[in-house]
Amino acid sequence: MNTLPTHIEWIGPADGGHLRLLDQTKLPGQVTYLDCRSVQDVWDAIKRLSVRGAPAIGIAAAYSCVIAHNEGDFEKLTAHLATSRPTAVNLFWAIERMKRVPPEVRTPEKLLAEAMAIHEEDRAMCQAIGEHALPLLQEACGESGGVLTHCNAGALATGGIGTATAAMYLAQQRGLKWSIYADETRPLLQGARLTAWELSRAGIDVTLICDDMAATVMRRGKVQAVITGADRIAANGDAANKIGTYNLAVLARHHGIPFYVAAPTSTFDRSIPDGSHIPIEQRDGSEIAQLPGVKTFNPAFDVTPRELITAIITEQGVE
Amino acid sequence: MNTLPTHIEWIGPADGGHLRLLDQTKLPGQVTYLDCRSVQDVWDAIKRLSVRGAPAIGIAAAYSCVIAHNEGDFEKLTAHLATSRPTAVNLFWAIERMKRVPPEVRTPEKLLAEAMAIHEEDRAMCQAIGEHALPLLQEACGESGGVLTHCNAGALATGGIGTATAAMYLAQQRGLKWSIYADETRPLLQGARLTAWELSRAGIDVTLICDDMAATVMRRGKVQAVITGADRIAANGDAANKIGTYNLAVLARHHGIPFYVAAPTSTFDRSIPDGSHIPIEQRDGSEIAQLPGVKTFNPAFDVTPRELITAIITEQGVE
Repeated sequence: MNTLPTHIEWIGPADGGHLRLLDQTKLPGQVTYLDCRSVQDVWDAIKRLSVRGAPAIGIAAAYSCVIAHNEGDFEKLTAHLATSRPTAVNLFWAIERMKRVPPEVRTPEKLLAEAMAIHEEDRAMCQAIGEHALPLLQEACGESGGVLTHCNAGALATGGIGTATAAMYLAQQRGLKWSIYADETRPLLQGARLTAWELSRAGIDVTLICDDMAATVMRRGKVQAVITGADRIAANGDAANKIGTYNLAVLARHHGIPFYVAAPTSTFDRSIPDGSHIPIEQRDGSEIAQLPGVKTFNPAFDVTPRELITAIITEQGVE
Repeated sequence: MNTLPTHIEWIGPADGGHLRLLDQTKLPGQVTYLDCRSVQDVWDAIKRLSVRGAPAIGIAAAYSCVIAHNEGDFEKLTAHLATSRPTAVNLFWAIERMKRVPPEVRTPEKLLAEAMAIHEEDRAMCQAIGEHALPLLQEACGESGGVLTHCNAGALATGGIGTATAAMYLAQQRGLKWSIYADETRPLLQGARLTAWELSRAGIDVTLICDDMAATVMRRGKVQAVITGADRIAANGDAANKIGTYNLAVLARHHGIPFYVAAPTSTFDRSIPDGSHIPIEQRDGSEIAQLPGVKTFNPAFDVTPRELITAIITEQGVE
């Protein structure tokens, strides 16, 4: 789809080329790009959230391995890259996979081909999630209903049409006239800054709301389904995602609206029996306090229990 | 209580004195005062929300009637004052009451005494609401539980200890160790700017959260009750209040937590059968959009149906 932002792109030949990233910290006000010519450049970009979303971080890391090779110290530089965001599983996964290109054939061309394969597989994963999600959402929304989402599990977080947003892009391609409602997603406003931007840029009808308006949107019948991404899913199906997701699941249940989670199978962590074992990152209070010294509670994620999730949609199907 | 902010105060003699208002638009960063020496000064202060909260607006309007008299055109100036915020019922009510001071005895001293009576009655109303709310909240919270509130129905919105906050101030006076959680209340952040400021200033343990964290706070057992104010209550008990209140009522019900509304009896509008007839102000999208041109839905209020309200607490008791 040519309306998707090109936010991760390799520029130039395998040997001597570089990685171009859309700087998501500047959205939606400025569409600017970062040309990353060293592993340190990519490390900085991941650290300051210029590229974010687990799949997108993995793809950026894969391309960085080509740069690491060209910089001449593959092992040391890829080990450094892995320290940029210690909780993003896809980061480690992508670097490990790049390392499986055997050292004896580890040419820039081979590494770039592997990075591009990772990128392409992610694109296909998004497409498959969308194909599985579309009939479920269409059953709830029909030709012209409304769908609510939270945070950004969109094109900007992946190498394709996103996870939670995938069915929205497919619905548009197939002529459905859905109204998308995007929670602004406090405190970091990924919904307002990223989801509203990428969907409206693609010509999808998107309406921005504050998180505390979700119940009103449901009560007024403006949405017939909710769909979000997930950061980690426990063995029993409890799903950790951006703070505020659990709020929506409770509100959806009260209003009799289906609540869907869309995520790749790699999001499942079968070693964790249930959501109570998922560690929740606590972030600095300065993100929300209007004055220094005010006490805050600022968890980055919450856990939605499986019983509030109508279905979990992966690239392999619906469960 | 000497820990309450003096936010509405008459300075000087009845004849030639003036009204001093805490400029709430500058909170919490700056504690600055507006010295209003003309009715136009007060009109401007109400219009730009330097003084807000229906009871507080009524009190400011009452004092302004003294200024109107001193400026020499009581009828014309009070009529002008009533145009500052056309939806605030207390504004008209206070002006009408000041007009009932008979013209033949309408001295600056008589008018000031009437304004001070309105102020004092509001203080007593808050105290009475607190006395009625305290045992209900204490039953839920015990000596050291948690209470969640939304927006600012506090001292800054009234002439006393607030409506939703009244029991919090009384609990502190009586040695209870409650933890108060304040929703930041998007889009205008009254919780973050006003409630967190006034409670922490009074030495009450208050923790600021984003609106989308409320369900997590409930699920983790951090709060045992929710209490909010109300802007208008229909004959059947449906209550309109700041957007996000209905969200909390649904979340509280799901978590088995009581949800209380605290408001003076003047908030009841018996002419309106139920909440569906309460007009809801839609505000400009610029309050929430991160970029011009983004479609928004920005209602200022929502309606909580009576069946989700555990009890409505007024100065007359509990219903």
